[in-house]
Amino acid sequence: MNFSSDNWAGASDVVAAKLTEIHASYSASYGESALDDRMRALFCEVFEREVSVFTVGTGTAANSLALTACARPGGVIFCHPESHIFNDECGAVEYFSGGARLCTVAGPGGKFSAVDLVAAMDRYPKQFVHAGQPTALSLTQATEVGTAWSLAEIAGMGEMARANDLYFHMDGARFANALVALDATPAEMTWRRGVDILSFGATKNGCWCAEAVVIFNPALAAQFAFLHKRAGQLFSKSTFQAAQFVAYFEAEHWLNLARHTNAMADCLRERIALAGNMRIAWPTQTNEIFVLIDKSAAERSAAAGAVFSDWPEPINPLYSKHDNEYLYRFVTSFRTDKNQIDVLLASFS
Amino acid sequence: MNFSSDNWAGASDVVAAKLTEIHASYSASYGESALDDRMRALFCEVFEREVSVFTVGTGTAANSLALTACARPGGVIFCHPESHIFNDECGAVEYFSGGARLCTVAGPGGKFSAVDLVAAMDRYPKQFVHAGQPTALSLTQATEVGTAWSLAEIAGMGEMARANDLYFHMDGARFANALVALDATPAEMTWRRGVDILSFGATKNGCWCAEAVVIFNPALAAQFAFLHKRAGQLFSKSTFQAAQFVAYFEAEHWLNLARHTNAMADCLRERIALAGNMRIAWPTQTNEIFVLIDKSAAERSAAAGAVFSDWPEPINPLYSKHDNEYLYRFVTSFRTDKNQIDVLLASFS
Amino acid sequence: MNFSSDNWAGASDVVAAKLTEIHASYSASYGESALDDRMRALFCEVFEREVSVFTVGTGTAANSLALTACARPGGVIFCHPESHIFNDECGAVEYFSGGARLCTVAGPGGKFSAVDLVAAMDRYPKQFVHAGQPTALSLTQATEVGTAWSLAEIAGMGEMARANDLYFHMDGARFANALVALDATPAEMTWRRGVDILSFGATKNGCWCAEAVVIFNPALAAQFAFLHKRAGQLFSKSTFQAAQFVAYFEAEHWLNLARHTNAMADCLRERIALAGNMRIAWPTQTNEIFVLIDKSAAERSAAAGAVFSDWPEPINPLYSKHDNEYLYRFVTSFRTDKNQIDVLLASFS
Amino acid sequence: MNFSSDNWAGASDVVAAKLTEIHASYSASYGESALDDRMRALFCEVFEREVSVFTVGTGTAANSLALTACARPGGVIFCHPESHIFNDECGAVEYFSGGARLCTVAGPGGKFSAVDLVAAMDRYPKQFVHAGQPTALSLTQATEVGTAWSLAEIAGMGEMARANDLYFHMDGARFANALVALDATPAEMTWRRGVDILSFGATKNGCWCAEAVVIFNPALAAQFAFLHKRAGQLFSKSTFQAAQFVAYFEAEHWLNLARHTNAMADCLRERIALAGNMRIAWPTQTNEIFVLIDKSAAERSAAAGAVFSDWPEPINPLYSKHDNEYLYRFVTSFRTDKNQIDVLLASFS
Repeated sequence: MNFSSDNWAGASDVVAAKLTEIHASYSASYGESALDDRMRALFCEVFEREVSVFTVGTGTAANSLALTACARPGGVIFCHPESHIFNDECGAVEYFSGGARLCTVAGPGGKFSAVDLVAAMDRYPKQFVHAGQPTALSLTQATEVGTAWSLAEIAGMGEMARANDLYFHMDGARFANALVALDATPAEMTWRRGVDILSFGATKNGCWCAEAVVIFNPALAAQFAFLHKRAGQLFSKSTFQAAQFVAYFEAEHWLNLARHTNAMADCLRERIALAGNMRIAWPTQTNEIFVLIDKSAAERSAAAGAVFSDWPEPINPLYSKHDNEYLYRFVTSFRTDKNQIDVLLASFS
Repeated sequence: MNFSSDNWAGASDVVAAKLTEIHASYSASYGESALDDRMRALFCEVFEREVSVFTVGTGTAANSLALTACARPGGVIFCHPESHIFNDECGAVEYFSGGARLCTVAGPGGKFSAVDLVAAMDRYPKQFVHAGQPTALSLTQATEVGTAWSLAEIAGMGEMARANDLYFHMDGARFANALVALDATPAEMTWRRGVDILSFGATKNGCWCAEAVVIFNPALAAQFAFLHKRAGQLFSKSTFQAAQFVAYFEAEHWLNLARHTNAMADCLRERIALAGNMRIAWPTQTNEIFVLIDKSAAERSAAAGAVFSDWPEPINPLYSKHDNEYLYRFVTSFRTDKNQIDVLLASFS
Repeated sequence: MNFSSDNWAGASDVVAAKLTEIHASYSASYGESALDDRMRALFCEVFEREVSVFTVGTGTAANSLALTACARPGGVIFCHPESHIFNDECGAVEYFSGGARLCTVAGPGGKFSAVDLVAAMDRYPKQFVHAGQPTALSLTQATEVGTAWSLAEIAGMGEMARANDLYFHMDGARFANALVALDATPAEMTWRRGVDILSFGATKNGCWCAEAVVIFNPALAAQFAFLHKRAGQLFSKSTFQAAQFVAYFEAEHWLNLARHTNAMADCLRERIALAGNMRIAWPTQTNEIFVLIDKSAAERSAAAGAVFSDWPEPINPLYSKHDNEYLYRFVTSFRTDKNQIDVLLASFS
Repeated sequence: MNFSSDNWAGASDVVAAKLTEIHASYSASYGESALDDRMRALFCEVFEREVSVFTVGTGTAANSLALTACARPGGVIFCHPESHIFNDECGAVEYFSGGARLCTVAGPGGKFSAVDLVAAMDRYPKQFVHAGQPTALSLTQATEVGTAWSLAEIAGMGEMARANDLYFHMDGARFANALVALDATPAEMTWRRGVDILSFGATKNGCWCAEAVVIFNPALAAQFAFLHKRAGQLFSKSTFQAAQFVAYFEAEHWLNLARHTNAMADCLRERIALAGNMRIAWPTQTNEIFVLIDKSAAERSAAAGAVFSDWPEPINPLYSKHDNEYLYRFVTSFRTDKNQIDVLLASFS
């Protein structure tokens, strides 16, 4: 039973079947196949408006190129200290953008407040060349700690961005999980709340290599085709990426996958709450669950074959730990089933 | 009948089957799965020595990262004016490397001579900071115009590189086609001739997204894992890239694909030579064939459904053209068969 | 007698006196002193319009920042193969701009034709992401080989730039020498002919460290203050740079210096024409003179204390050389006088 | 009476006289004049060993190039949140280095402890590509808040750097002020304590444009000439920079200037301590003094012509403020005299 990460879960049967289905056809390369066109049309449908879409190979590439499109000289990007762009991308945003700075704004639950954002921006006064200049605001939806920004919170950040001449980026590596958790539409969770540019992740939710930059603000789209090609992200056999997205969107496959994943997380949360020998470290709404467990119990579980991760303590944890309690992360995926949860829970006894 | 490019040909059945086979398993992410290990071992076997291997999504990424590993401040990379890095990558090498310059060295057949390389290097004297400094030599094997550097020519360039303190890079987007054409081993065509770092392409020869940087010179490998991750090229579900390479190498699948592709090119060359209404523009050894055809005949063929490319004239063509003759490119692939060639040839009549 | 380069000539008495005059005053730093304001006003007067001005330490910095302001992803800058940005700046334009490519367009006399520029641009079709995109056109005025673009030629290039959506940059390291040679006004030689951005050099003409980027196109000025500071070019004691420019412009000092320099070049050209034992390699209009001399005569002169430079042959020289003739460069400066010319000429006998 | 900043103070008479003295001579350009040689020899004398020296135009350029020499992909530089590289250089280090990250380590008095440095480094485990990798440690000496790292503290940081494979950079914008405050030698304060590379500032202490990168670690010097030229920092009339440094070092002029500046600061500190209507915010050892003053008194002083700066509160001030008290900064310079101090103190009454 594997609760290590949703990126360990392979590809969904539907996505895999689509790749098999098209593998033996000739298709125009470099984004010009019929499936590429079909994919772009589906993105417009899903977001209920005209959007520009560019597929890339990794979430790191999506985030880096999206924020490079927003770059200004001496530019500063505001993000959470637990964000993927700050912690897990080896300085890719800084590299691709030619030296943007990530300024972290802390807060509980992977989010920060408008007040704290203002305090961070105050260090970079308008037109004060010595400090540099604010450029973009980046949220992660769902956050890296399993929560989701509410629609009202996103709207508030959208207003902050507009009022301060910041581009508004959303890292949607787990976009579908947040969407389902909020019971919102893609439009409601993004451009209707002021998002300019989105890293849209499909890999964690059933594809094997399908990430995209979705651009709502035309000013950011103007040069993007060149940014994209120059960054080595225009795949020659792009039709295989397009195929994944087409299978993903058709017949609500993506939403069904995320609904299942989130339902499995709900189930796991309930089971943990009842288990007695462990406790939830903080409430989450999506498919990541952070749990405090006695170390010996965790070791028993691992010895029994359970796969999950040790997790670093947050900077200001909202819980206090007992002796021998440690923090662990469990992630459900489209491949998780109830039996795996049963076996997992049993392994701690 | 499609002779547009080998990157229009989808994936081979063997590669596609491998992806289907593994899609439903849990696998460690970010290059740490068992298939990733198996793939690395196969690269070492294929090259008959310890090598460092990093998979990437595109040939552009492979070339750019390989040459970034070689970068020096004010650095100059010598390459052919018809090379992919110079013509077809939107300045990616310049971008990734932080501003390397590509200095072209012309010559017939997609190659250049040691004499012309020396003349180009003379503009960048050692330790003369005003001009910048020579950094790397990049060959394409097979070349963009369908020829292949002979083992002796590669060895000569390897000596030039060593004597002038240049790193020696090979762009092997069509590595297998050249290898089969020369009847050489991978070791003979690379590090035994002085190659330090290789862009190894498998996409055009039957995979759908499988490119790799193969490093022979340990000095270039030291920081590569960071270059690779920072460039957004460490795929989370890397096991799907590894699977393609494993299927590609096992049971000589890759060589069989390339043998078939090259044999189809031989067949097409023969048929063109006999056709009477077209002529080979220059001799090629791999799967690209450049042909001079009367424009009206080419239009008839296209109207009949043949797919192939108009091609820009070389700077100093070795042929002279008749009135109404134009240059076209035909590329065979692992998916080409004799029937397609028959139908193609008939379409010009 | 020193004819090595105008950057060997120290500073003019007027400029040096101005630095002495202000050295003991308190002045606001970072471009905010009264002298900084005075300098900016003088630039507007000199160019007969509102301009944005940023002072920098070197011509390399001026050129690199000017062209960085023009940058687009995958961008290509067209310039002459004998230009300073291509030959003498260690890849600085490529570095500062994050990877712009310099595409050279050759032609006699340090200039190129509209036809040859079109041919070079044809390799970068509009919106064809594989090749990259044209971004800027850069001329040097006066050229590196002693000639000057005529006002009509500059106008023609300005029209080319506008028609092809290129920013038009002028490298004016020897701006004053060209201006005097053409008997034109600064406005006539720049923005009235379509120039968007200018590297304005004063160092070679009597200052010791006074270069500036002068921006006519407001779109290029919008972010320039941040480009400038981020590049380490905002001097704390900027008032000393401003002082040089103020002394330079007041009472036509700069024009008088250039008039003297050019007059000395005219004198030297006449003397060489009459000398019998040497000949002008090609006609020049400013303060650089290229001369073919018997090697033994040149060695005699050097032994007698004359300082001048061996010069590399142009790629396609318009002259043919006799045995033992070599190419040398002589540069006059504001410090040159007739006696030095007499002694120089005598040294070859 | 001007206590705004030491970069408002013009140039010392000795430095100004040297510039006047040499202005009318011919000198070889681009670092090759006799004065350039003399300057390099003086740096070796001053530091009691062979060093590599490169002059630049600004402290921003010195810091950025020094840290670019230290760069690794995904590299992280540890510095204080009040450091100039973090607060006052518009992202120049990030830009020049191609995307290095500055990770701040806080602490009182502009310094941080080894314990806090270790905690910061723990976020970047060795060879963990997701996070990036530690690259350099940068201290400012004297600090931005008027204190100085003791020789023992520098030695401790040198050991930390060596133990963790970090390059050790010192930002010496006010090197002389710290040196005099510690009564140390240049060697003792740098390479004998493990410093690899130094930004050596002379501008604030009596020159008008004289900054240098001094390299002790030969590995960092190997490519520096190219970094330097490519960054637009090789001045053509370099002899004028060299002249400033020669005047600066000869006859201990630089130490005498700093001794005077620091003595004036001592005097000002004493006078403030006795004044009654203001108090020192925290103890400082060099020429910056931070003072808490009633706002109305500060306004009276400014109205009387005193020039000094409002200063932002430190993040965790060690003092508590009374109502109406504000923080102000006073900087003495080589141009300060006792009379100015008298007038300043009187202006607050």
